[in-house]
Amino acid sequence: MMTIQWVALDWGTTNLNAYAIGERGQILDRVHNAQGMSRLEPREFEPALLHAIGPWLDEDRIMPVLACGMVGAQQGWLEVPYSETPCLPVSPETAVSVPVNDRRLAVRIVPGVCQRQPNDVMRGEETQIAGYLAQHPDFDGVFCLPGTHSKWVQIVNGEIRSFTTFMTGELFGLLTQHSVLRFCTKDPGWDDAAFLEAVETAMSDPGGLAAKLFSMRSCALLSGTPSETLRAHLSGLLIGSEIAAMRKMWRASDVVIIGDRENARLYQSALASFDITPLIYDDAQAIIQGLRSVAMAAIHAAEPA
Amino acid sequence: MMTIQWVALDWGTTNLNAYAIGERGQILDRVHNAQGMSRLEPREFEPALLHAIGPWLDEDRIMPVLACGMVGAQQGWLEVPYSETPCLPVSPETAVSVPVNDRRLAVRIVPGVCQRQPNDVMRGEETQIAGYLAQHPDFDGVFCLPGTHSKWVQIVNGEIRSFTTFMTGELFGLLTQHSVLRFCTKDPGWDDAAFLEAVETAMSDPGGLAAKLFSMRSCALLSGTPSETLRAHLSGLLIGSEIAAMRKMWRASDVVIIGDRENARLYQSALASFDITPLIYDDAQAIIQGLRSVAMAAIHAAEPA
Repeated sequence: MMTIQWVALDWGTTNLNAYAIGERGQILDRVHNAQGMSRLEPREFEPALLHAIGPWLDEDRIMPVLACGMVGAQQGWLEVPYSETPCLPVSPETAVSVPVNDRRLAVRIVPGVCQRQPNDVMRGEETQIAGYLAQHPDFDGVFCLPGTHSKWVQIVNGEIRSFTTFMTGELFGLLTQHSVLRFCTKDPGWDDAAFLEAVETAMSDPGGLAAKLFSMRSCALLSGTPSETLRAHLSGLLIGSEIAAMRKMWRASDVVIIGDRENARLYQSALASFDITPLIYDDAQAIIQGLRSVAMAAIHAAEPA
Repeated sequence: MMTIQWVALDWGTTNLNAYAIGERGQILDRVHNAQGMSRLEPREFEPALLHAIGPWLDEDRIMPVLACGMVGAQQGWLEVPYSETPCLPVSPETAVSVPVNDRRLAVRIVPGVCQRQPNDVMRGEETQIAGYLAQHPDFDGVFCLPGTHSKWVQIVNGEIRSFTTFMTGELFGLLTQHSVLRFCTKDPGWDDAAFLEAVETAMSDPGGLAAKLFSMRSCALLSGTPSETLRAHLSGLLIGSEIAAMRKMWRASDVVIIGDRENARLYQSALASFDITPLIYDDAQAIIQGLRSVAMAAIHAAEPA
């Protein structure tokens, strides 16, 4: 078996993703489970981590575990103070060691980034951005990171200059699961044309979202519009509102989307209708590349002089 | 005891409101409970009604019960087809009789109103509008009916010309109860200045609502903004987005708000910051006055020739 050199840990509100990384940076193994921080008390974090990555540990060796995400938030394992914009997305020296009981573990959490004017916060996305920049150090432009809380991040000279977070994914979940629209959007399925049409609607008139939402219910009642059309329409309205608000950013800069395949595809097709061709970068790869420099610094610091 | 001439019944998704009306139109008694249509099977409607108004019934007399609201919807007691715009808000001849088992009851449901371009629906609000118009037959202008699904309705020559529904109240409920914002908006309390400031923010830039929402979370985390401020801010953002979208309507017309005291006050103060002074009309009074003409027609039709 090949030696695991370090562990990359993406630990968020709802999920834990761990990657066993080999000496040439390759992924040797991975673990995914639903032991997110929202389900854990502070004292349960170390046992949950051991449960996930125990098989990767050796008795006679300390494994560097580099973590990012909500694990460093107030309700996480250990609160790690934010870096403040403008700043590098990730600096190895700002990672914070977590006190652990198991001697085989050396856990460090990477800080999130905050912005003061206007107030905004991220935990995890800074690491993904660092991952892309590690491979493309000269990139100046805009990152779009779709998700529960989508982020648009402007990079100038390798630093995060400013960013904006949208509750887009969370709104989609609330509306399809808890609102009056749950009846008319409940069936899975998709309608690409309805998605793009709704993006266009939201772009040409970004206000009055609450009316556009209720209109979906009326279309189901009066015209029998099917669930797959309305589901795609809802997604298009929300994503369209988001990219409308970010128009100045993507019109003036190169855009890189970091996200899961499904979300990235949607944002890419929405932007493509305005002749923007964003590049897509895999989100897991971004995490690993983003934590890599921090892992290397930790490993070198631990080596005998 | 004074004779109850008829019963006005406002039966919605979550509540039942019944009013015992005397011969001079006065309210002799009222019942309010949570037996809304979302909690009832079709066969349970008549028992629920008898439970609520049983004490008002006589053995030797048939009581006219005039109903409006979601009781006439597909998931209600009996589906009553919509009237279609442009139309009178309520016409006595379109009320539909409900088959009942109890000989003391004569129940009729008033139709809701639908609009085809664009699709929109109402059930209950048409009756409130009819109530105001019964007392002010020459009114031309705009009604604002705040609530779970707020409506703005344009009246021309006594008819509903067009209307728009906003999910404003439902969004407020979803966000304060189910979203990441529930933590920072959970305490009751209110901040009028924060409300009006957020209305102004939404009016001057109606797009990007999902970013303005997440910003509240960041303000709580980074600046310790208190719950009462953020709760009022959220309400102001949502109501401000709504009145921004209806700007053309309220700028050009007289505005009457029909709603409960708390909601009516909020919309009134939001509009007042743009030098609009809407009139407020009580929502219960609106229901009773709106059903009155239908009740009178039913009573006259039942009289011996």
